Amino acid sequence: MEGKVKTQIARAQVGEITQEMMIVAAAERLNPEYLRDEVAVGRVVIPANVNHKNLKPMGIGRQLKTKINANIGTSSLSSCPQAEVVKLKAAIEFGADTVMDLSTGDNLDFTRRTIIDASPVPIGTVPIYELACGEGDGVDLSEDAILAVIRRQAEQGVDYMTVHAGLRPDQLPAARARKLRIVSRGGALIARHMSENKCDNPFYSCFDRILDICREFDVTLSLGDGMRPGCLADASDPAQLAELRELGILAARCRAAGVQVMIEGPGHIPLDQVGFNMEIERVWCGDAPFYVLGPVVIDCSPGYDHISSAIGAAVAAMHGAAMLCYVTPKEHLGLPNARDVRDGVIAYKIAAHAGDIAKGVPGARERDDAISDARAAFDWEAQFNLALDPAKARELRDEALNERSRTGESGASASGDHFCTMCGPKLCSMRVSKDI
Amino acid sequence: MEGKVKTQIARAQVGEITQEMMIVAAAERLNPEYLRDEVAVGRVVIPANVNHKNLKPMGIGRQLKTKINANIGTSSLSSCPQAEVVKLKAAIEFGADTVMDLSTGDNLDFTRRTIIDASPVPIGTVPIYELACGEGDGVDLSEDAILAVIRRQAEQGVDYMTVHAGLRPDQLPAARARKLRIVSRGGALIARHMSENKCDNPFYSCFDRILDICREFDVTLSLGDGMRPGCLADASDPAQLAELRELGILAARCRAAGVQVMIEGPGHIPLDQVGFNMEIERVWCGDAPFYVLGPVVIDCSPGYDHISSAIGAAVAAMHGAAMLCYVTPKEHLGLPNARDVRDGVIAYKIAAHAGDIAKGVPGARERDDAISDARAAFDWEAQFNLALDPAKARELRDEALNERSRTGESGASASGDHFCTMCGPKLCSMRVSKDI
Repeated sequence: MEGKVKTQIARAQVGEITQEMMIVAAAERLNPEYLRDEVAVGRVVIPANVNHKNLKPMGIGRQLKTKINANIGTSSLSSCPQAEVVKLKAAIEFGADTVMDLSTGDNLDFTRRTIIDASPVPIGTVPIYELACGEGDGVDLSEDAILAVIRRQAEQGVDYMTVHAGLRPDQLPAARARKLRIVSRGGALIARHMSENKCDNPFYSCFDRILDICREFDVTLSLGDGMRPGCLADASDPAQLAELRELGILAARCRAAGVQVMIEGPGHIPLDQVGFNMEIERVWCGDAPFYVLGPVVIDCSPGYDHISSAIGAAVAAMHGAAMLCYVTPKEHLGLPNARDVRDGVIAYKIAAHAGDIAKGVPGARERDDAISDARAAFDWEAQFNLALDPAKARELRDEALNERSRTGESGASASGDHFCTMCGPKLCSMRVSKDI
Repeated sequence: MEGKVKTQIARAQVGEITQEMMIVAAAERLNPEYLRDEVAVGRVVIPANVNHKNLKPMGIGRQLKTKINANIGTSSLSSCPQAEVVKLKAAIEFGADTVMDLSTGDNLDFTRRTIIDASPVPIGTVPIYELACGEGDGVDLSEDAILAVIRRQAEQGVDYMTVHAGLRPDQLPAARARKLRIVSRGGALIARHMSENKCDNPFYSCFDRILDICREFDVTLSLGDGMRPGCLADASDPAQLAELRELGILAARCRAAGVQVMIEGPGHIPLDQVGFNMEIERVWCGDAPFYVLGPVVIDCSPGYDHISSAIGAAVAAMHGAAMLCYVTPKEHLGLPNARDVRDGVIAYKIAAHAGDIAKGVPGARERDDAISDARAAFDWEAQFNLALDPAKARELRDEALNERSRTGESGASASGDHFCTMCGPKLCSMRVSKDI
């Protein structure tokens, strides 16, 4: 390791408590020494590129509050950088803890720079998308091209990057046996490259040089699961688990090199398999923070996959998943718009919060206890203000009151009612049970 | 027991396989003898009032597909019987397996008759609501009034009825210690009645006579949880568990009397407590079908409680809950409208299906495998047709295509695309991974 190492994990390993660790410890109500030790062993990461100047540091790990990520990004002809900044701010407003820029359009450099400059939360990317956005049908996956893109993004201040370095040639036969083969975009491109060129994964081959770049800027690596199952039939199969095993070995190399690392996870997983998937990752990957995509627990709910995946995400969080990548109602159908982003983020706030309460994060239930007190007091304003989405709660209550008054029911005063429109005053259990 | 006993459980206990059992066994892909034995011991119920003429029989039990219930019903001034029939048909169309008529308006008899006549699915009621809808502020909870209402509803063909017979005076001190005391409407009315009159629960006192009526018409009793927790802070507390213990004793009395019985369950339960709540019910209530309301797993998501409760419901189903009572986005805010009913039913179809796959119901994953095959084949029509809500999937895909074409992207042909708008053709993992 060179003398200029300055990553959070390297500093923690020599006993230093950084400013970033102080901020995260305070936010998580943890002892700074404890947090430092967790960063040192790699159970907590603090994605904080030294070049992301306006970043508000946050931590990701099993012991911390469950975090959620929202994806934004331009596509080939569909968006401009300023529109992405609008989506960025919307995602943060509704509660996203990190945002991934998955742009695949033109002007990727400028879009990314614009997003990073505007973002107080960590920004993640998938560098292979930029490699795939060159001219023509081909994708240049030479090591030089890979390292150049990663370096440029690191210099810009990207806080964490997904690299599918654990996908190896020996996993391809198992992938061919699947119902849906490979649904990860990066994974599919790498698999095709390995097949066509009869070579190993270039991200694997140049992994040490990737680590050098990450160490220089403190980029956290997010080891992508190119073999994540794309349907229940492929869940927990040999392809998925062989890659996960490889990711665990790579995670150890990251830590030894002083580079922070997360592991990415599925995908499509039946509900009864979610718990053991979290456990396998913990054991095989040294409890590196697990960053899961859902998982959706059924395949047949297009239009509602924010819900079917929030079920899997909540159970994953309860079992220790550290960060949940949101899924929107548009999953499997098209690109999300602003409404979809809101629906996805809120569904994931619910999943993360349910997980935090279930795993006993200190203080996690305070908000719930407060809103319950507000319910007992018929304090509608307090209920709205404590809701995960106050505007939606207000909107639905107003709608119910308007529908009631349209039908001629009297006494519909918005926030002063000491009963709700579900029961009316005579059947209001909250009123009645005050008399017991 | 009288000679005219004709309930499903009584007939199963003497070895008979009824026509209803044949239909349910076929629908569930079970051996009729096995199903009969499950009905005989009370692990499966077939709510089928002998006076509900157009009923299509269905079964409820841990070993069967998880069922979902949707609530409809008039309120004091807000609806007419025909409007309820519209809601009934909408709920059934989206997939409700039973419907509860929770009307509290005028003309309850006529409304109920209209709903039963129109319904091929079992209809449930909560008779205490009718008792509470008399003139004036008082609620007549005399045994004569209770039995008269139950008899009239049974004669009309109600298939199952919620009675909160397990709520007893010795549970009240524990309820007073709660953050939200009693949130069940029936439970609160009974608790107040017991407090004011220093008496036991009249539904408990006349329970044998209730059983006589149920036996006469084969009404399935759904033993209500008047002490269900209304917030996380009250979950799994002494009040809830004391009542559940009482429900187990009453369930044994039901079975001994030849009356089918279900147990109702919470409510508001943290995610880590959902599993053991299902287990306690199984042990204490002789594995009587558990009919749960959600549970919601956080308190602070008004406007999205269909999602926070679908999380709890899916995990409950995985742990053996037999029927899930839906929760709509309007929960805690007001009465649901048609859109809310649809959102609630679909969220619960997702939860039930996730539970069925997790608990290994035979054939549960067939639909998922079929839609995955359709994805691999880029067969959009098949994907839509296999979706839990085809109209919604179509709507969101069209929206995405329209947004794409508005921004000038070419090649937006609705259903023929061999890629989706999320990735476009070059980054389509499904296309790329065909080449590995």
